[in-house]
Order: sequence, then C-alpha cells, then structure tokens
Amino acid sequence: MSSLSNIELPVFADVQDAAARLKGIARRTPLLENPVLSEQLGFRLIVKPECLQRTGSFKFRGAYNKISRIPEEARPRGVVAFSSGNHAQGVAAASTMMGIASTIIMPKNAPKAKIENTRALGGDVILYDRETESREEIGEKLQAERGATLVRPYDDPMIISGQGTVGIEIAEQSAELGVIPDIVITPAGGGGLVSGTALGISGTINCPVYSAEPATFDDTKRSLESGERQSVPDGAQSICDALLSPTPGEITFPINHRLLAGGLSVTDEEALDAMKVAMLSLKIVVEPGGAVALASALTGKLDLAVKTVVVVCSGGNVDPEMLARALAR
Amino acid sequence: MSSLSNIELPVFADVQDAAARLKGIARRTPLLENPVLSEQLGFRLIVKPECLQRTGSFKFRGAYNKISRIPEEARPRGVVAFSSGNHAQGVAAASTMMGIASTIIMPKNAPKAKIENTRALGGDVILYDRETESREEIGEKLQAERGATLVRPYDDPMIISGQGTVGIEIAEQSAELGVIPDIVITPAGGGGLVSGTALGISGTINCPVYSAEPATFDDTKRSLESGERQSVPDGAQSICDALLSPTPGEITFPINHRLLAGGLSVTDEEALDAMKVAMLSLKIVVEPGGAVALASALTGKLDLAVKTVVVVCSGGNVDPEMLARALAR
Repeated sequence: MSSLSNIELPVFADVQDAAARLKGIARRTPLLENPVLSEQLGFRLIVKPECLQRTGSFKFRGAYNKISRIPEEARPRGVVAFSSGNHAQGVAAASTMMGIASTIIMPKNAPKAKIENTRALGGDVILYDRETESREEIGEKLQAERGATLVRPYDDPMIISGQGTVGIEIAEQSAELGVIPDIVITPAGGGGLVSGTALGISGTINCPVYSAEPATFDDTKRSLESGERQSVPDGAQSICDALLSPTPGEITFPINHRLLAGGLSVTDEEALDAMKVAMLSLKIVVEPGGAVALASALTGKLDLAVKTVVVVCSGGNVDPEMLARALAR
Repeated sequence: MSSLSNIELPVFADVQDAAARLKGIARRTPLLENPVLSEQLGFRLIVKPECLQRTGSFKFRGAYNKISRIPEEARPRGVVAFSSGNHAQGVAAASTMMGIASTIIMPKNAPKAKIENTRALGGDVILYDRETESREEIGEKLQAERGATLVRPYDDPMIISGQGTVGIEIAEQSAELGVIPDIVITPAGGGGLVSGTALGISGTINCPVYSAEPATFDDTKRSLESGERQSVPDGAQSICDALLSPTPGEITFPINHRLLAGGLSVTDEEALDAMKVAMLSLKIVVEPGGAVALASALTGKLDLAVKTVVVVCSGGNVDPEMLARALAR
C-alpha cells in the first residue's frame, strides 16, 4: 500500500480535465426535485440521480477517465479491477468501449444483477469469497502475471477526478436552476465519489459537502472526527453492498479531511425507507448504498430547515427482492 | 361536444410556441438507454422518461401551456378539470404556479398517490363514481356555476401543443446523440400525447409514430384501422388507469388519423412486465399506463430488428402495491 504514498493528490484542474474527456460520453444526469416532498420536509431537496448514469452508477465516470488514458502499448495486456459491482460495471463498459479486455474480481455474494451485467458489458468475471479470500491479492497476482493495468476503485487520482465531474455538474446545473446549494451530501464507501465531488464543487461554489455511510461502515465519519484513518470492526454487515470498504482510501482521505464538512451515517432501515421515497416521489430506482445520502437528509441527520440540499443518489443496481423489501415498508 | 367541431387544429408552429413557453419551466427529460438491454432485444431502445417530468407525468406540459394563456380577467374564476390523476396533478401544479384556483374532478378509485398529490399541489379535489356518475356533467355544471375555465385533458389545441413538446425534444435530443429514430411509440388515452408528439416530430424529422394502448382500451388502434372514431365496450377494465378514455378525442383523432403510422396494444400483464424492465434496466418508475409503449416494443408488436426505437414512458404515478406486483413477476 505504501506504493500510493508518493502519488500527487488530484486538484480541481484534474476534475475539469475529466469533465472535458467525459463530455458526450458520460450522461449528464439531470437534477430532480419534487416540490410536494420538499414542502413536507421543510427544505428544498434536489437529487442528482447517478442511477441514471451509464451502467447504473457514477462509477463509469472514473473508470472511463482512467481507462481512456492507458497508453496504447499497455492496452493489449488488459485491465484488472476488484469491485462489489458498480466499479465492475463501469470498468467493463469503459474497457469494452476502448477495445480493452477487462478482468473483474467480484464477491460471490454480490447482487446477481451486478454480476450478470458486468459479464454482459464484456467483463471477464472472477468470483471470490469475501470472508476467506483477499481480492487485493487475487488482483495483484493477475496484475503481476499478465502485466494488466490495475484499475483501483477509488485510490487513484484519475478515478477521483472522474467521479468529481458529479460535483462540477451539480454546480453548473444548480446555477441553471437559479439556486445555490447550501449543502451537498454524497454516499461514501472508499471515498472516491465524495472526495471528487468536494473537489469539483470547491472550484466553483462555496458549499459544505458531507459524506453519508451505513451506520455499520462509518469509517469515513469516524476518521473525519478523529483526523486519522479508522477502520470498522471485522464482520460488520450492511445491505449497502456498494459501501462495504472498511477503511477510507489512502488518497481519498487526505482530500476528504481537508474538504469535507463532516460525515453522516444511517441505518439499513433508513436506507430502505429512502429507496421507497425515491421510487414513489422521485420515480427513480436507487440501490441501498446509493440511497444513504438521501436517507441522511430525509431523517434529519443535519438541521436542514429552509435550506437547499443536493443529495447524490449514486447507483441503482439492485435485485428485485431488495426493491420489494423497500416497497413493503 | 359539437362545440369542438369548429376549433382549428393545432399545427407545428403551435408546438414550437409551446416549447418556447415551457422552456425553463417544464423539465427537459433526458433520453435514457441501456446498451445491454438493447443488445438482448436486437434493436436500439431509447426511452423518454416523462415519469421524471414535474408532477410525474407529461401532463404538466399541456396544462401549463393552456393555463398560462388564460386571460387576466378570467383567472379569478379559477379552472376546472376532470382527470384520473395525471392531468389532475398537471393542472393543479400549473394553476398554483400562476396563482389560479383549481377544482379537479377525479374518480373515487384513482390511485391514492394521484389523489393525495393533486391535493398537495393545491388542487381542490371532488371525487366521483366512475360507474354511476358523468365527470363531464359535473365539470360542466361547475364551469357554468362559477364561470371557471374548463381545462380539457386532451381535446384542446393548447393542450395538444404542450404535450407535443415531447416530440420536439425527442427530435432535438436524438440529434444530440447522433441518431435518427426509425420509430417513435407513445401511450394513448384520449390521444393528446401521441397527436402532439406526432406534430412535434413531423416538423423536424420524417419518422413513423405509433400509439400504444391497453388491449381492452384499443379505441385509437381500431379507429385508425377503420378511419372513424370507435369506442370500447361499456365495462371494459384495465390496470392502466391513465388510459381509460373510451373514445379518441374529437380534435386529437383527425390529427392522429393524418399523422400516425398505426396503433399497437398490449395486455395488462405485458404492461406489468415492462414496468419491471423499466425499474431494473432503466432505473425508472413507470405506472401501468405509462409503460404500454415500452411494453409494445419489448413484446415485438412491430418488427423492430436493428432499428432505433424511441418510446415515451409517459408517467410514474403509481401506488407501491402495483410496483410490488410488477416486481413479483
């Protein structure tokens, strides 16, 4: 892991550069709001639905930004990635678009939809056991054997910069709506989306950015509070399969420590309730991990009265059983 | 009804005029697609998700276009509308934005979400019994008593022109994607959306437009085939509550007869299957009536092989029980 310690942190110009690269390739997801819902809540809720992004999550942004920069001579050796599913799909889609072979290491218990879609997008999927095997070891072995480029899920300046285009779009689209957000909240797993978004916003508007996590995977929240990277205990569980990173990233955390206003966390039940609100009031399908920022706003983890709040719903790759579980609440 | 026989039919310039009026007010819903789904289907499927429109359906477009043109002196007398729910919400929202009181006559068995939302948007809701009462009579009585402006759900040139902005956007956004649609399909109840869309497209691109209906409410399809307005039998039933008009409109039908390539129909079960696909593959929530155009494409009612097909998903105002029913399939 010390290999990352010399890497230069990305800056706003890198996010702008990613935005130029992704123009016309990543979808510029709209801002959505429901005035009836906002009136009930007592604050203006605006949602950035990255579930409508190509591959069903924001992960395509970072993956394409990274993979499209792989030098010609390295492309025939392919790419390797490990992911619970959204990064997997982003990497598979971006690789296929560039004509590069991709091998994706995914946990056996990832949602079926994520595994199937990664394959359909052209990824060669290798399944591993989350409890007994190390995805990092499998990935590094493949990388060493094949000379493939490892596409990390968050600890890479080009990945962070790609995700950060969400922040640039929030700033631009808010201006188009004639509003200035008071607060922005995004989900956090390893911290790529939230660090990128904070970078992307920092170059344009002055607005506090918060991370949101499952209560059992609140490592970013506790790390922000203590000022040092904290881990969650072994064996922690959550239905938010996209957010099960046990520790903030080596590159993402210094950015988050500098730029974030704080960390929030929600229970799995609060995430399910938010999924139901997303379906009924915003007409979008959001997965559990994608719903934690929305959940933190809906359940008042911050005092949002009369504010304008932008939450990122970061993905929508979910099996029907989980949607049914949310609807039954 | 003969009062409509002298009305001038709307033309493309009216739709352009509506587009200018709705700019920055109605949401320019994006075009969505899922390459994995398209590959499985064997044609390129592009969805225009009007479920993401203000009020959860396209109906806001026509309502705002109509209501914003009511002369100052008539505004204090309010507006009256009858609707199963989507037009209701569009009229309530547009009226409230203009500071005009709205009375909406809705069937007692409309989805709860539609009734509650119409009230929340500022509409004064009067419920009637679909089996034993005539909504037209109730509406005309209120109109006569109060001098309110009747906002018809489809038989009005300004309503049709407003809905037609969907067609202009499809043409513009397809061009932005670098594609020319081979076929466009939209749901049809009274025919306002499909006639407007056909008008909006006709001014820009040469592309056949089809209507889609529930099999038990296929009056537009049969009318197009016979060349004369046909009605469905009394007592017909469908879960597509937004599409229960028994006869094509007096104004919409002449437009549809001239511009449409044909009519399609799907069963309620096919609409439910399409709702499930919309949730899982496109991450959007679509109501049964909103899903019939998508359903007609998914079930091959036309030979779409290797074509580029744009379907409008016209609304997403649906109770959780119906979504659960679709997911359980």
